[in-house]
Amino acid sequence: MRSAHPQIDTRNGAEPPYQIPTHPNFQSTVSLRKLRRFNYLILLFRIAAFSCSLAAFVFMLAASRAHSNSPRWYHFDAFRLVVGANAIVAVYSLFEMVASVWEISRGATLFTEVLQVWFDFGHDQVFAYLLLSADSAGTALARVLKGADTCTAWSAFCVQADIAIAFGFIGFLFLGFSSVLSGFRVACFVIKGSRFHL
Amino acid sequence: MRSAHPQIDTRNGAEPPYQIPTHPNFQSTVSLRKLRRFNYLILLFRIAAFSCSLAAFVFMLAASRAHSNSPRWYHFDAFRLVVGANAIVAVYSLFEMVASVWEISRGATLFTEVLQVWFDFGHDQVFAYLLLSADSAGTALARVLKGADTCTAWSAFCVQADIAIAFGFIGFLFLGFSSVLSGFRVACFVIKGSRFHL
Repeated sequence: MRSAHPQIDTRNGAEPPYQIPTHPNFQSTVSLRKLRRFNYLILLFRIAAFSCSLAAFVFMLAASRAHSNSPRWYHFDAFRLVVGANAIVAVYSLFEMVASVWEISRGATLFTEVLQVWFDFGHDQVFAYLLLSADSAGTALARVLKGADTCTAWSAFCVQADIAIAFGFIGFLFLGFSSVLSGFRVACFVIKGSRFHL
Repeated sequence: MRSAHPQIDTRNGAEPPYQIPTHPNFQSTVSLRKLRRFNYLILLFRIAAFSCSLAAFVFMLAASRAHSNSPRWYHFDAFRLVVGANAIVAVYSLFEMVASVWEISRGATLFTEVLQVWFDFGHDQVFAYLLLSADSAGTALARVLKGADTCTAWSAFCVQADIAIAFGFIGFLFLGFSSVLSGFRVACFVIKGSRFHL
């Protein structure tokens, strides 16, 4: 049974997965399948959040690069915030992807369990709020620019900024989903002393 | 022991608090004290969130009312969003204050327990994101207005808008704290079948 699921080791320790399961936290096959699904779901959200925030970052950076006298993202406070927030979220999601793959393959968390669950949840929450805040500010600025002359003269810049902001919002959604799952892991850890509820 | 804490009935049912505790969920005095502290903390955050969002709403509505030809909040998309979001959060917080007082005084939730914990958590999350989004958009617009002529001509309007946005951000913080506590109650309910973890 264990050899059928070598990548899910539900024990808290870091013993190699081929050992005979003698740990008291040994899980049934059904639980193992659910745990694997939970971990893969987190990984999926991480990949999606990474892709979206990277796309937002690249689109905003590349906005109207072709024209030398076009407005650029660093001319506007809110767009600087969008670029910064998406860069931070992209780097963080990349790190969390690595942590998630590590957990799926080794069955143990990258840091100690208590640090890992609080690290994930805390950063998910803060970065989700940061990203939403940046994208909302970017939207407000984009609407002002549409009303002003900027978007009639440089429509390509405005379109690319809009696309970047849209990607940022989608990235926020996926980060929000991750935050719900990591919040659940924290609650499991606080209540049961283990990040698994099953 | 029960009569010393008549306002905290930790059982899920709605039996009157003066009954002899024969219910299996009967809690110790220490747990009762912790539960009472938890409920009072939630109530405190609700009151703070209500006060701040109401203040933000009033400040934005009253911005430069004295001058008939001054710009008003409804001339700007982002400020309309600030007014709307703060109004929604104020009404919601008022309702949650009532629900919280009800729970402290009666020992039972206003709705059924499962509905109440999910209702609280879901609305806390959504409204916290809504409020942050509105306030960020408002901040971006306020910064644009500062760069334009609006704030030199109508500085009182800009100052009042800034104060309203600041109150909105503080309200968001308290709503975020509430959301952490209500999220913890949801997790307790999912894992243990009761909103109390103690």
